[in-house]
Amino acid sequence: MSRLKVLFHVNENPRWPRVIVNVQNFIKDVGQGQADIEIVANGAAVTAYGSGPEEDLHREMQELAALGVVFAACRNALNMHSLAEKSLPAYVRVVPAGITEIAKKQSQGYAYIKP
Amino acid sequence: MSRLKVLFHVNENPRWPRVIVNVQNFIKDVGQGQADIEIVANGAAVTAYGSGPEEDLHREMQELAALGVVFAACRNALNMHSLAEKSLPAYVRVVPAGITEIAKKQSQGYAYIKP
Amino acid sequence: MSRLKVLFHVNENPRWPRVIVNVQNFIKDVGQGQADIEIVANGAAVTAYGSGPEEDLHREMQELAALGVVFAACRNALNMHSLAEKSLPAYVRVVPAGITEIAKKQSQGYAYIKP
Repeated sequence: MSRLKVLFHVNENPRWPRVIVNVQNFIKDVGQGQADIEIVANGAAVTAYGSGPEEDLHREMQELAALGVVFAACRNALNMHSLAEKSLPAYVRVVPAGITEIAKKQSQGYAYIKP
Repeated sequence: MSRLKVLFHVNENPRWPRVIVNVQNFIKDVGQGQADIEIVANGAAVTAYGSGPEEDLHREMQELAALGVVFAACRNALNMHSLAEKSLPAYVRVVPAGITEIAKKQSQGYAYIKP
Repeated sequence: MSRLKVLFHVNENPRWPRVIVNVQNFIKDVGQGQADIEIVANGAAVTAYGSGPEEDLHREMQELAALGVVFAACRNALNMHSLAEKSLPAYVRVVPAGITEIAKKQSQGYAYIKP
């Protein structure tokens, strides 16, 4: 089977833990480095990238980023929630519009999953 | 890159404002007329097409329809919610089953997004 | 048009009735045996496969399974909810990881729908 490519879409903050567990289990199942994985956050979900009490979540994100998982943030959503791009963790990639990113990735063969 | 085609699925009424903002930002990002966009409503989300207090929502829908965005409504859902087809705004296209429409569009290369 | 292939993703228990109605209406629309349909449950949604008071839901699941609908359950989720595989209805197929199943099916041309 060809290499799996998967995009996870998260637009609500309470869904983040579920997204993280889904990605962790997915990597455990297919093996490290065996799939292309990207998480696109838009809407209120981008606020989880900001500094705050979510230390456990940030640690888990960082561990996944170190395994090659791409974390993207929608610039429109960052602006709406007054989050400065320079305040984000280094592994977060800002995209002009989350929807465009999601559409492009699917056109490139990524599966879409909304946990 | 080839022309982007995107289908938005909405099946809960409170999600409509989020869908509208997502589509507006998407069009702002890629440019008017640069993508094929369809919104498929089924379940309780079809009631937003009915007459009611949602004047702002209807105005925004109409503006997007004028830009070429296709608005579809599932007939099963309309029947379940006792909404007469002739009561719907002129830009709403009724499809026999929302799920079939969503499946067909994806088989035609549309990306799926559930805001 | 080529045969439609559709994957339904459910990860929350309260969504099950909506999933079932969506699948029933889809089959009514395209005709029995005219589409490949799979429902993948992960997260808390796997608990609906367990024994309990949901007799109506189980009867509807069984009827759909008899029509060829595939019901899958994520093993990670079963373990997390202490559900023994042998306690599941016979028509439920256990997969190592729900996310992998969803990704694979999309790579095989299945449309993704999250009711």
